[in-house]
Amino acid sequence: MSVVTLEKCRENIRKQLDNVVDFWLKYSLDRVHGGFFTCIGKDGKIYDELKYVWLQGRQVWMYCRLYRTMDRFHKPEILEAATVGGAFLRKFARVSSSSGQWKCAFCLTRDGKALKVQRTIFSECFYIMAMDELSRLTGDKDMQLEAEQMMEQLIYWVQVDPSGLGRPQLPGEVPINSLSVPMMLMCLVQQLTEGRGQEVAQKYKELGNWCVEQILQHIQRAGTAILENVSVDGSELPGCQGRLQNPGHALEAGWFLMLYGAQSGDKEIHRTAIRNFVELPYQYGWDKEHGGLFYFLDVDGHCPTQLEWSMKLWWPHCEALIAFLMAYSHTRKPELLEIFSEVYQYTFSHVMLAGSSSASAHNSDTMEVSEMQTGCGGKEEICCCI
Amino acid sequence: MSVVTLEKCRENIRKQLDNVVDFWLKYSLDRVHGGFFTCIGKDGKIYDELKYVWLQGRQVWMYCRLYRTMDRFHKPEILEAATVGGAFLRKFARVSSSSGQWKCAFCLTRDGKALKVQRTIFSECFYIMAMDELSRLTGDKDMQLEAEQMMEQLIYWVQVDPSGLGRPQLPGEVPINSLSVPMMLMCLVQQLTEGRGQEVAQKYKELGNWCVEQILQHIQRAGTAILENVSVDGSELPGCQGRLQNPGHALEAGWFLMLYGAQSGDKEIHRTAIRNFVELPYQYGWDKEHGGLFYFLDVDGHCPTQLEWSMKLWWPHCEALIAFLMAYSHTRKPELLEIFSEVYQYTFSHVMLAGSSSASAHNSDTMEVSEMQTGCGGKEEICCCI
Repeated sequence: MSVVTLEKCRENIRKQLDNVVDFWLKYSLDRVHGGFFTCIGKDGKIYDELKYVWLQGRQVWMYCRLYRTMDRFHKPEILEAATVGGAFLRKFARVSSSSGQWKCAFCLTRDGKALKVQRTIFSECFYIMAMDELSRLTGDKDMQLEAEQMMEQLIYWVQVDPSGLGRPQLPGEVPINSLSVPMMLMCLVQQLTEGRGQEVAQKYKELGNWCVEQILQHIQRAGTAILENVSVDGSELPGCQGRLQNPGHALEAGWFLMLYGAQSGDKEIHRTAIRNFVELPYQYGWDKEHGGLFYFLDVDGHCPTQLEWSMKLWWPHCEALIAFLMAYSHTRKPELLEIFSEVYQYTFSHVMLAGSSSASAHNSDTMEVSEMQTGCGGKEEICCCI
Repeated sequence: MSVVTLEKCRENIRKQLDNVVDFWLKYSLDRVHGGFFTCIGKDGKIYDELKYVWLQGRQVWMYCRLYRTMDRFHKPEILEAATVGGAFLRKFARVSSSSGQWKCAFCLTRDGKALKVQRTIFSECFYIMAMDELSRLTGDKDMQLEAEQMMEQLIYWVQVDPSGLGRPQLPGEVPINSLSVPMMLMCLVQQLTEGRGQEVAQKYKELGNWCVEQILQHIQRAGTAILENVSVDGSELPGCQGRLQNPGHALEAGWFLMLYGAQSGDKEIHRTAIRNFVELPYQYGWDKEHGGLFYFLDVDGHCPTQLEWSMKLWWPHCEALIAFLMAYSHTRKPELLEIFSEVYQYTFSHVMLAGSSSASAHNSDTMEVSEMQTGCGGKEEICCCI
């Protein structure tokens, strides 16, 4: 792929991003109750009024980031959407759990009543991202503090005591290191510290290092596989859970590691990020027969238990596009650009046609995020992977 | 399809059932820790040692039923498997919940430690089925009592107070009537009362009627649709949840209603069962282009939020085979036999080849259950739809 072609990709992505932002600004913002509708048909009609908290957080984050960092989005309507969404999130997303700690709901009714609370940390992650990014726009120190307080709680659940998440402690359960957890925490460290100065950077430095260590534990089988779940001491777990591979997650972890390597000047981590978390997941995760990235795989070739394992979903392709473009922009190695090109061609000839416009359109959100060299993809898979 | 052809179906299914029972007897029973392995490859190798409680219960039920009602399965090794499985289930499946009530685990380690507890009633349903059926073999009155006690608790959760299930009460949640609940309760009523005499029949009579009433509420849109979730007063719910259709569930509810209609002599219910719960789900649920039953549909044609909605899974086809064969055997209407034939041909030319042997082989379990005219399919989808 020549530089001219890469410039064409950028043009296409830029156009797609404009369309996507127009679409969501027009149809998603709820001017009656605040927040964002998340289930929207191609024609802009709301086919379900529920408001998923992941998407509230991601949409707030996205508008803020666009407004703050890209001239052409520095417009009052973008700012308005971000603040209206942020106010809804701040007012309704948090519910107190039985342990007296604050959990975020997974899903809210149109008027903000909690409908479902997951026993995981991810709604909270997107809450933090939104609040931190919005506080950068508004200069609201309380909001920044709130993001950091939620982050403290999250660290407590992950590193000290998970009982506040609401899962009963069961005798057969063993603690595991699931890739999504250190990956998301690392994304949050990068979010919270970016441009905040030395004090904040210092505050999260140890956590960042811990995340890197936890992520690297997922390199298994003499460096030939990234496994989604490992034991807390970094060894392979038995059964389906232990053999599970999620190529999109590995690629996503790849960006965060690359950014970490680039920012810290740790070249070894940077090389590992590209070799083990970008090139490798593509090697085992790409469908050699039909193209596209599998959603899940079993490292020993058994059929994964997830029914949707063989589906080609849009967000792993975004993850791959970002990872390969970032890897290429950091190294200029032509083979990385070639794979970017393959994934790009597959994505824009398959995903953009096959999915619903609302889902497929999101590709370009994430693509442009890569262009912006940030640490988070603003993925919005909620409507189709609850 | 002529009677001769139907006789050929029976021969095929009989042969398949023999193969399936041989396979599971040989590879599934754990002679070290008791209970059954549930993740078994085509070659008989265990690829995950976890023991899913649904499958423990269903396998115990299946062996007992085969032993008790079919001469060729009245063999010591079938009895042994049933009792070894039953002892494991009885010893390990129940965990006390925070409310002091007994919940069943969803999943156990090989040696019986609880690993996951779902906040639903279904593990308990399969526990009850197993205990009731096993008590018929052993004449163990305590075991029968235990099944009935678990049933009482289940009724309490469904009709009085669900808080013992462990789901937090959330302000946005509205109580719903989900088809799977009255359908399973009705199956249990038929299980617990079958051949037990007047006293037991009387005990569950009111519950049986309540189940029928609840199931009939799912007939919506002037009789043109079966919706999976309705409000507790039987009206349509908003959003994706309200528009969800699950053709396999509707067909499964169809058998229980047909049996109810046949046993109670209520011809109107029997007609409704066939028209609305057998013929109708086939009409909207069968893929006119490629054949096969969809897993989920949206009544207004939106894309369901479940990623796996368009997959053709083996168990809805079992549900359809049983429902149509039962409907035909009750009515002798040729059009019902024709649809049975279509589903049979699709199933045995697609599902039996495409799935893993362990999953696809189960078709015939369920088929023979239909031949046996019982009320439960002993489905074992656990390995692939956790």
